[in-house]
Amino acid sequence: MTSAQTPRPGDGKTLHLNAFLMSVGHHEAAWRLPESDPHAHIDIDHYVRLAQTAERGKFDSIFFADSPVLMGDPGRRPGGKLEPTVILTAVAVQTDRIGLIATASTSYNDPYNLARRFASVDFVSKGRVGWNIVTTAGADAARNFGLDDTPDHRLRYEKAAEFVEVATKLWDSWEDDAIVADKALGVHADANKVRKIGHRGEFFSVDGPLNLPRSPQAYPVLVQAGSSENGKNFAARYAEAVFTAQQTLADGTSFYRDLKERARLLGRDPDTLKILPGIVPVIGDTEVEARELDAELERLISPEYARKQLADRFGLPVEALELDRELPEELPSEDDIQGAKSRYTLIVNLARTERLTVRQLIARLGGGRGHRTFAGTAEQVADTIEEWFRAGAADGFNVMPAVLPSGLDRFVDRVVPILQERGLFRTEYTETTLRGHYGLARPENRFAAETPLAVAQ
Amino acid sequence: MTSAQTPRPGDGKTLHLNAFLMSVGHHEAAWRLPESDPHAHIDIDHYVRLAQTAERGKFDSIFFADSPVLMGDPGRRPGGKLEPTVILTAVAVQTDRIGLIATASTSYNDPYNLARRFASVDFVSKGRVGWNIVTTAGADAARNFGLDDTPDHRLRYEKAAEFVEVATKLWDSWEDDAIVADKALGVHADANKVRKIGHRGEFFSVDGPLNLPRSPQAYPVLVQAGSSENGKNFAARYAEAVFTAQQTLADGTSFYRDLKERARLLGRDPDTLKILPGIVPVIGDTEVEARELDAELERLISPEYARKQLADRFGLPVEALELDRELPEELPSEDDIQGAKSRYTLIVNLARTERLTVRQLIARLGGGRGHRTFAGTAEQVADTIEEWFRAGAADGFNVMPAVLPSGLDRFVDRVVPILQERGLFRTEYTETTLRGHYGLARPENRFAAETPLAVAQ
Repeated sequence: MTSAQTPRPGDGKTLHLNAFLMSVGHHEAAWRLPESDPHAHIDIDHYVRLAQTAERGKFDSIFFADSPVLMGDPGRRPGGKLEPTVILTAVAVQTDRIGLIATASTSYNDPYNLARRFASVDFVSKGRVGWNIVTTAGADAARNFGLDDTPDHRLRYEKAAEFVEVATKLWDSWEDDAIVADKALGVHADANKVRKIGHRGEFFSVDGPLNLPRSPQAYPVLVQAGSSENGKNFAARYAEAVFTAQQTLADGTSFYRDLKERARLLGRDPDTLKILPGIVPVIGDTEVEARELDAELERLISPEYARKQLADRFGLPVEALELDRELPEELPSEDDIQGAKSRYTLIVNLARTERLTVRQLIARLGGGRGHRTFAGTAEQVADTIEEWFRAGAADGFNVMPAVLPSGLDRFVDRVVPILQERGLFRTEYTETTLRGHYGLARPENRFAAETPLAVAQ
Repeated sequence: MTSAQTPRPGDGKTLHLNAFLMSVGHHEAAWRLPESDPHAHIDIDHYVRLAQTAERGKFDSIFFADSPVLMGDPGRRPGGKLEPTVILTAVAVQTDRIGLIATASTSYNDPYNLARRFASVDFVSKGRVGWNIVTTAGADAARNFGLDDTPDHRLRYEKAAEFVEVATKLWDSWEDDAIVADKALGVHADANKVRKIGHRGEFFSVDGPLNLPRSPQAYPVLVQAGSSENGKNFAARYAEAVFTAQQTLADGTSFYRDLKERARLLGRDPDTLKILPGIVPVIGDTEVEARELDAELERLISPEYARKQLADRFGLPVEALELDRELPEELPSEDDIQGAKSRYTLIVNLARTERLTVRQLIARLGGGRGHRTFAGTAEQVADTIEEWFRAGAADGFNVMPAVLPSGLDRFVDRVVPILQERGLFRTEYTETTLRGHYGLARPENRFAAETPLAVAQ
């Protein structure tokens, strides 16, 4: 479809684009392509070039996922990567406008250190940082932090909520105009505008103030990507942008309405919460060429390795899955899954609805890992983006190139110009901060009106 | 003195220089000078320029101290600063050779996260990172991390030792040649060369492996700066470079011999432990001009604020110190001081030996905070550096300019050429890594000879 004449959802607004950058691409087997640098995941210049490409395409932001654990089998795919806030910092000083989002865990960080690090990157980037708040599933991660197993899903979200409270209090512990820098009087800050936060909660006790003045954006843009019940309620309360995996337009629209309504019920303007479904675009000059690229990637997946990964996700022995049969009829319920609950259900539903064999399911997941893969021409990719945007399923998209850098290059060079021509996407940056790009307000300081509770002696 | 003809300690070797960069300078009142930018502490470009100046001067490294707490009174001096590993990353991509050292606390970090972050900066800098290991004193810091008070000094050091064990195990969890990147076979790493560490200790349980391959230097250069008994024993075992405060040549020589001997008794080659006393050089065209600059800085110190800071350090009420009298006869013993023990004793000894009034002591500390301030011409600064180096009190110096950037500019432009002319300091970098600059070996991998204990499934 092309641009419509009658007003619909999305009219009068433009969409937002985030580039999800997974070293050599979102596809499990991308590193095996002739074009891929198998050392790219530890090469900062690779990430900087990707960020510069996204900036050339006027993307709102780039995003690095993360977990404090070695994910998957390093024998089978690039293992580990540079720590995301380190990547963002290196990118920040080599770009001007692009927003910079990184995942960091509320289960395996201290709020004081995390608040300080993100505020530091906000200063370095002059207001371009975002924080994807995750609770981190998995016993493997837990065992890197003195625990035997991952804490309960609900408990992790309760801790995450308190973590965000502490972090935002710390970001409010300095008023914006606290620094007066009066050399003659020898007064650097107005000490009445620098406060201890005195937080005493269930999970954290933190005195403050932060050892850093209030940063350009005050808070990083708060991002969230869990779509379980706990995840959606958390997002409705705290998130300003949500990354989500949605396979169909119907599911996308339903999720969009649900989350916006949850935000409204909590007294928020739903427009202060931007929803970005993932799309894994595989772009060819023709549809046939795109499908061939997709098929080439499929062939590079090791089915035995992928079968093991899938069985682990389901909490089943590997023998329970047969490559050329459908999923077993008896599967755990979402309640029994401790991590990535909604992704689990999405995968099961996808397999059941399309009656996929395990081998077929693996192929679908290898490309998208639950996100929607779309193979086609640039025009077709632009069409589906426009369709979802106008149908009220998305405020924008989390673009997850299957192969990097080529997949991002193609998107920027071929899809972005079409979206711009249709008036759906910016042709130049009009703002300088990530909050600006997403049309989000700079947070007020909760303490600014209070009686001083100064730290000064 | 000038260069000697007869062999002595230091002959045949050249010295090492580290630049200790405290925003606008090491002096408490530096920000009040007309030349100082009072916002420099939150301006990344300021730090990058300083690093580039140090690199122009062929320094081995730059160093950023840190504590996860707002130090001092933000009303009286610039409060807080950018997180040091963020600063190092921004500097790394805008310099080529200079080493990059940051403080991070073993009491208020998780080993997994810290090991990953420093390894990431080592990749980004291509082998130039160093870690100053601190245990972090002070109840204020403890109260940002859920504790009521700082843990006992000895306990902090025991935890620090185990922390370093865990971190170095994680840095060994990948062998250097683990990545094979065989695209045809679909084998990214030799999974036998990626190991869980399975650490179970008194303070930490960490499974590993690290989510990052072994970095260019394998380990950051391990730096330490505590000079208490616990601190010296820790340094003798783990440190590769030591920053220390020494007021007199006799004290410096004695400390140097003591620490090298402790290292030798632990079976180490003492030359693998570099000792760098601090020096706060105040450089003038003439000695008189240098002393005037020093006096100008003294005048800008607020005596009442400094008196309070000193009383806090001594654990005394402020009334116990009178500005124009010497220190009280009765003072706590070092055993009763929970943080910065050796610095406490140094300050007391300095005041007693020179019979300083509190006001005079404050002036001395405001410039050096316990480190040795030396005001003179560039030639005189070079002389004292050479004297200490040849006398066996130093392998190099921790240069702590009182005012930045001017103090570093002067040192680089005036003192470094003299040291180079005397054959005491490099005229060009000959190495590319921080280990290379300091003449330190790249650590062997403790697991490389072991039977595989692979993580791969």
